[in-house]
Amino acid sequence: MDRERILLTPGPLTTTLQTKLAMLRDWGSWDADFNAVTARVRSSLLKVIHGEQSHVVVPLQGSGTFSVEAAVATVVPREGHVLVMDNGAYCKRAAKLTSLMGRKCTVLDFDEAAQVSPQVLDQKLAQDPSITHVVMIHCETGAGVLNPLRDVAMVCEKRGKGLIVDAMSSFGALPIDAREVRFDALVAASGKCLEGVPGMGFVFLRKAILDQCAGNSQSLAMDLYDQYQYMEKTTQWRFTPPTHVVVALAEAIAQFEAEGGQPARLARYTDNYRTLVDGMARLGFMPFLDPSIQAPIIVTFHAPGDSRYDFKAFYNAAKASGFILYPGKLTQIETFRVGCIGAIGRVEMQQAVHAVELALQELGIASGEPAI
Amino acid sequence: MDRERILLTPGPLTTTLQTKLAMLRDWGSWDADFNAVTARVRSSLLKVIHGEQSHVVVPLQGSGTFSVEAAVATVVPREGHVLVMDNGAYCKRAAKLTSLMGRKCTVLDFDEAAQVSPQVLDQKLAQDPSITHVVMIHCETGAGVLNPLRDVAMVCEKRGKGLIVDAMSSFGALPIDAREVRFDALVAASGKCLEGVPGMGFVFLRKAILDQCAGNSQSLAMDLYDQYQYMEKTTQWRFTPPTHVVVALAEAIAQFEAEGGQPARLARYTDNYRTLVDGMARLGFMPFLDPSIQAPIIVTFHAPGDSRYDFKAFYNAAKASGFILYPGKLTQIETFRVGCIGAIGRVEMQQAVHAVELALQELGIASGEPAI
Repeated sequence: MDRERILLTPGPLTTTLQTKLAMLRDWGSWDADFNAVTARVRSSLLKVIHGEQSHVVVPLQGSGTFSVEAAVATVVPREGHVLVMDNGAYCKRAAKLTSLMGRKCTVLDFDEAAQVSPQVLDQKLAQDPSITHVVMIHCETGAGVLNPLRDVAMVCEKRGKGLIVDAMSSFGALPIDAREVRFDALVAASGKCLEGVPGMGFVFLRKAILDQCAGNSQSLAMDLYDQYQYMEKTTQWRFTPPTHVVVALAEAIAQFEAEGGQPARLARYTDNYRTLVDGMARLGFMPFLDPSIQAPIIVTFHAPGDSRYDFKAFYNAAKASGFILYPGKLTQIETFRVGCIGAIGRVEMQQAVHAVELALQELGIASGEPAI
Repeated sequence: MDRERILLTPGPLTTTLQTKLAMLRDWGSWDADFNAVTARVRSSLLKVIHGEQSHVVVPLQGSGTFSVEAAVATVVPREGHVLVMDNGAYCKRAAKLTSLMGRKCTVLDFDEAAQVSPQVLDQKLAQDPSITHVVMIHCETGAGVLNPLRDVAMVCEKRGKGLIVDAMSSFGALPIDAREVRFDALVAASGKCLEGVPGMGFVFLRKAILDQCAGNSQSLAMDLYDQYQYMEKTTQWRFTPPTHVVVALAEAIAQFEAEGGQPARLARYTDNYRTLVDGMARLGFMPFLDPSIQAPIIVTFHAPGDSRYDFKAFYNAAKASGFILYPGKLTQIETFRVGCIGAIGRVEMQQAVHAVELALQELGIASGEPAI
């Protein structure tokens, strides 16, 4: 029997059947009906961040990382200097793609078990006035840290630096208000907290910097300015859009709005998170992060100290009970991750904990307690 | 009533319900079950071009154009010199993305109503030995021309030049045999003649040049060498794959194989093409191209000469009868295009001709005859 599993992974995640059913139709990418879907999606996305006055939103084909690269390529001039605040794997990826495209890039290191520090950023920006842009990850899913977006944005605004935010795993769940937090670009994707299917990203660009973006990108595919201009002129995407992914996102957004938007989604995910962490604690599992900096998006747990523990066997046992876990992404410590996002609620999280309990039993492990 | 229309567009196109039904499930992108789907798709794709011995295939997120850019970025070294053979809009796009990424690019112009010429290419390569790579489009959907792949490949091999083929609209329908035709890269996508949904491309890379591809790309997202290495090592995609698009492609390929593969698909599309052209001729419509260079993929027709003709009204009338046409892409002459590809057969093409007949009647036009 091959019953569908619940994905406890930070995207792709479990979507509703209704969202997937939206994909049972083919759309002409040039047709007005499809262009109306694109327009509706863009308008809804702007509302999520209250960005109707200050920002535009540009969808882009491909994975979320494509949109991160596109944001840097489009917003940062070729002679720009980017500072990446690094407290995890996705920060390192942002630094890599920035350097690769030829933009000067400086990495500001932080502990992966801590938030990035606006104070340290402020000092760094004071020391090196050549820095033009700052890149930060709102929720670093490497460990699951929630970084202080508002304070970082204030430092950037004060110092006159551009801010590019990777909000991939936070957008739609954690509050982001463009009226109060200034950023030049903010990036997210279809298959995350909006609970669409993966295949496209989108980037909010601040209207005030739009004109300066022309001609920055050395990549045609990654040029959000070109994509934006074309879309404004024609209502169409520049190149073939992932039509089924777009209509699934439109359907997912309609459900998001019906549920009560970002506050309702945060409430559900927070409940998922608490159900998970409380249940796992009863099994002896310890989260890697201090709860005060933990986003209710994805939780990193220490692996059990028991010598019989093996991630692959543990993963397969949980999968046999219907749940897909996620490997850890920390280099020094053995961990695994469990996502709290997707079209799931308390019942699924209780069952997930039970699946973990059964997995421990199958491996002959008495407790999830770590070695430390 | 909002019944689904038949898409007579060159991708997105009409897919089978069975292909779309494959998307009614969520897959973990890290999970072995999904990685097995990716492996199966890659293996099947290699068989289509008989490339198991000579080539590898690398899938890439995004539209087909992303994969064209990725092929150039990965295969051509930074000091390389690309010659683009230009007989249409997609050639011009290939030249644009090549120049933009900083590769030296020379454009060799041909008439958009003619094939590119291997003889002229040979002369050009003799004149300018600094050229390292040639880019050609197999089927130029701008007008619908089938370009002479085999002869161009022979010239490139003789002159020791790399060849990058955009086979977006031909792959799966027109014969391409890697055992007989030498190319460094060949690009296609999910939502074309394989009849999957749009959202990913794939690039065949010749094994003999793979090692030289390391470090060429200035874009992380577009780096097919990096994508390939990661996939070989982990069986996974580097960044979140469009999981639903991938499983739909796997299902579409199974149907492609069951139908009889490329020869069967070509036979069906050729029948679609003849049904279309014959039926349109009865209405007075004239194809733009000489039939000897016309691919049975997409047909450009001259617009009717009648002054009452208006593409938008004509398009909407055909749409009301259930068929989505495609605008022309020629700059000098008024035309429109009709695709012959997708999960459609003779009945749909007969009905499409009838829809065009009704559209003419609605516009009060007696005949599709062009002005010339």
